[in-house]
Amino acid sequence: MPADGSEAISRPDESVIQDLVEELQKTFGDRISTALPTREFHARDFSFHELVPADAVVMARSTEEVVEVVKACAKRNVPIIPFGTGTSAEGHLAALHGGICLDVSEMNNVLEVNAEDMDVTVEPGVTRKQLNEYLRDTGLFFPIDPGADASIGGMASTRASGTNAVRYGTMRENVLSLEVVTSDGRVIRTARRARKSSSGYDLTKLFVGSEGTLGIVTKVTLKLFGIPEAISSAVVSFDTLKGAVDAVIASIQWGIPMARIELLDDVQMDALNKYSNLDYPVQPTLFLEFHGTDAGVKEQAERMGEVCEEYGGGNFSWTSDAEERDKLWAARHDAAYACIALRPGCAVMATDVCVPVSRLVECILETKKDIEEAGIIAPIVGHVGDGNFHVGLLIHPDTREEDLRVCIKINEKLVERAIAMDGTCTGEHGVGQGKIKYLKAEHGEALDVMRTIKVALDPQNIMNPGKMIKI
Amino acid sequence: MPADGSEAISRPDESVIQDLVEELQKTFGDRISTALPTREFHARDFSFHELVPADAVVMARSTEEVVEVVKACAKRNVPIIPFGTGTSAEGHLAALHGGICLDVSEMNNVLEVNAEDMDVTVEPGVTRKQLNEYLRDTGLFFPIDPGADASIGGMASTRASGTNAVRYGTMRENVLSLEVVTSDGRVIRTARRARKSSSGYDLTKLFVGSEGTLGIVTKVTLKLFGIPEAISSAVVSFDTLKGAVDAVIASIQWGIPMARIELLDDVQMDALNKYSNLDYPVQPTLFLEFHGTDAGVKEQAERMGEVCEEYGGGNFSWTSDAEERDKLWAARHDAAYACIALRPGCAVMATDVCVPVSRLVECILETKKDIEEAGIIAPIVGHVGDGNFHVGLLIHPDTREEDLRVCIKINEKLVERAIAMDGTCTGEHGVGQGKIKYLKAEHGEALDVMRTIKVALDPQNIMNPGKMIKI
Repeated sequence: MPADGSEAISRPDESVIQDLVEELQKTFGDRISTALPTREFHARDFSFHELVPADAVVMARSTEEVVEVVKACAKRNVPIIPFGTGTSAEGHLAALHGGICLDVSEMNNVLEVNAEDMDVTVEPGVTRKQLNEYLRDTGLFFPIDPGADASIGGMASTRASGTNAVRYGTMRENVLSLEVVTSDGRVIRTARRARKSSSGYDLTKLFVGSEGTLGIVTKVTLKLFGIPEAISSAVVSFDTLKGAVDAVIASIQWGIPMARIELLDDVQMDALNKYSNLDYPVQPTLFLEFHGTDAGVKEQAERMGEVCEEYGGGNFSWTSDAEERDKLWAARHDAAYACIALRPGCAVMATDVCVPVSRLVECILETKKDIEEAGIIAPIVGHVGDGNFHVGLLIHPDTREEDLRVCIKINEKLVERAIAMDGTCTGEHGVGQGKIKYLKAEHGEALDVMRTIKVALDPQNIMNPGKMIKI
Repeated sequence: MPADGSEAISRPDESVIQDLVEELQKTFGDRISTALPTREFHARDFSFHELVPADAVVMARSTEEVVEVVKACAKRNVPIIPFGTGTSAEGHLAALHGGICLDVSEMNNVLEVNAEDMDVTVEPGVTRKQLNEYLRDTGLFFPIDPGADASIGGMASTRASGTNAVRYGTMRENVLSLEVVTSDGRVIRTARRARKSSSGYDLTKLFVGSEGTLGIVTKVTLKLFGIPEAISSAVVSFDTLKGAVDAVIASIQWGIPMARIELLDDVQMDALNKYSNLDYPVQPTLFLEFHGTDAGVKEQAERMGEVCEEYGGGNFSWTSDAEERDKLWAARHDAAYACIALRPGCAVMATDVCVPVSRLVECILETKKDIEEAGIIAPIVGHVGDGNFHVGLLIHPDTREEDLRVCIKINEKLVERAIAMDGTCTGEHGVGQGKIKYLKAEHGEALDVMRTIKVALDPQNIMNPGKMIKI
């Protein structure tokens, strides 16, 4: 049973799997594997959930091949778990009911860039770094940045976001259209390339964030943005968390169009200093980024400096020098590694919630209290413009069982707190199996409506079963 | 049968309606009416579709009352057609299968403004002007502006947008959460107030734009924005439509963050000049608006001036004077009346499509050719940043039948053209009954997935039947 007890593991009969594998081998040859290392590799994500390998792994290279796999599985009631890069964060890849892991990482072609329309269509295995590399000469870029070099299909499926969602939105706002293979092997396109539409139900948004439980994403059309003419960054430390968050609230109301507003707590700053050999004050700190024209980013930075001063922010320093900027964001991106370095040998149990920004300070402070009382080290990093924050709970190998128990409890309290504040159990990590037990508390009767949709679109419950919605 | 032949009209038995009305009278007293003028008033929208009144009209004042109506109707298999302000544009209000018109216009309280979180929760009958009046002292505003002073519930239900969607998004991006009464009378909340979430299926987006066919919206939580510190406007005329659109494409790629980019064709400019006693060149013209800081809007306007010059735009003139600005946008908002004044006595058959912006010029020019060949007067106004444009086909009372026939044909060709260009049959008017026949061509197999969802969530087909999705 997985760590959170969400689902008992069951598997199709061995003979069913054997028959299925034999059928698929005709098309896939050595692109289907039942070797344990392959199966284990494909069950691993960035989470703490138990490794539950699928019965076989198949590498698809086209929509037609995905259809073939889905139909072969549907015929036998065998589950299908889609795989992109294995960077999901809530045990999304565990084969809780056995079945086939469908690896789409080789479906990694950029299919069409429409520069005038500022959109691109990609196969699901294209990663975000690969995409931006591809786009480099077009003057356009794709902003969503969840940290890991995740696949676009996986990012769409988990409704990923990241540091610049406050300016550019999340995958929810930036997926224009999807091609999806449904549970019975039909190929649908959820929308056309028009920027807006009032035609039909918004299937795009229904499939974005559905974690492979309604169908397999085989193409993604994304919005792109012009690379800003100028970028400047700033760092500012505050005496209190409240000062930092209040400065952000004020700046957003003032309409300062910041591209990144990252909050790092004192513990995280301490970790960064040690890991990256820096000497920032060990205080709640905002890392900021401004996009615009030369004059615009200067004005934004200056205004934000004034706002921060009003709320107790000291040492506001900004730069538009690319090298300095890269150094700053490299430090921010190293936050996870820096955490681990705080207590070498530890693993990180990562969790996230999102609350209305007016409740953010209270939510973080109460959580820090829980963490301190439990004697755990757990830095906090927040996408504060969205009210979203991450807690990286450190688990030491010597005290793993005890640490796990304590951290699961802290996570539980955190989620309950976020929900009580009219927030959500996850801002960007997704539900997977880890947050599934909180969905009733968060959604109430609406969860039954979600279940009705799941049953209608996947009546056999073969699409990543045991994740998101229990049937 | 309605003008477009979309659906045969059927009604519940008179005795069923009588029984239902009697039951509801116990709660609603004189807030339920079967008087023909009341029923006709509630069947009328801004479209050319035949007036098909419901069997009775009931005014609800609370979610509980909506639940009561829905349960009473569900018990008897009687359809329910929700009504906000009657400003929909594709025959959304016609009682094609009879039933009850559920008027929520008296559910018009602003329930909660969260200034720090920049959101507001309203009842569905609140209109957009009423909301902005209410917000006036908060420094915040709600930007979506579909022209008519529509209800927020109706705007959510039709996925409305308008002139500033290019900057602020449509109802799709700006509804944070909904309270919905389902077809069996359950009350659900589609999401919490957090700005982002990866928890569960995105029911909010599923209900936004579903035109009352999946449930009745009883509360809407919206994103708000800070009122910009400075606003400037500009007008610029071009020798060619292509020049105007290319200037817009270039400016968006350059990242000039315009708040409004409205294209008016020569016919529309002629109409405006005559109606509002102005003397603009009778040429394709852009009306622009910039939001930001004083320095920011100046910079944006100057840059846009340069871009326009490059693409053949002459007479670029901009102003941040509020009075001049209001005059300009009043003229734009009078576009519909100005159309009618072109040929007094005419009515306007309004339609809209949306295409990838790279196809916009071609789509408009081919449509203008159809219009000229048919000898119809039909000004064109476009939200060009989105690729969305409106055609106002003038129908003269003396030649109504012939005009209608010709205009329906032009509309049909327009929609087919838009779909062939990877666009949509409606960018913001909605499907209602008018565009229903194009959904198969636009969505293909995805339409069947939409139908599966409709059947799952409204198995009796009592929620605004005959609109959006045929069962």
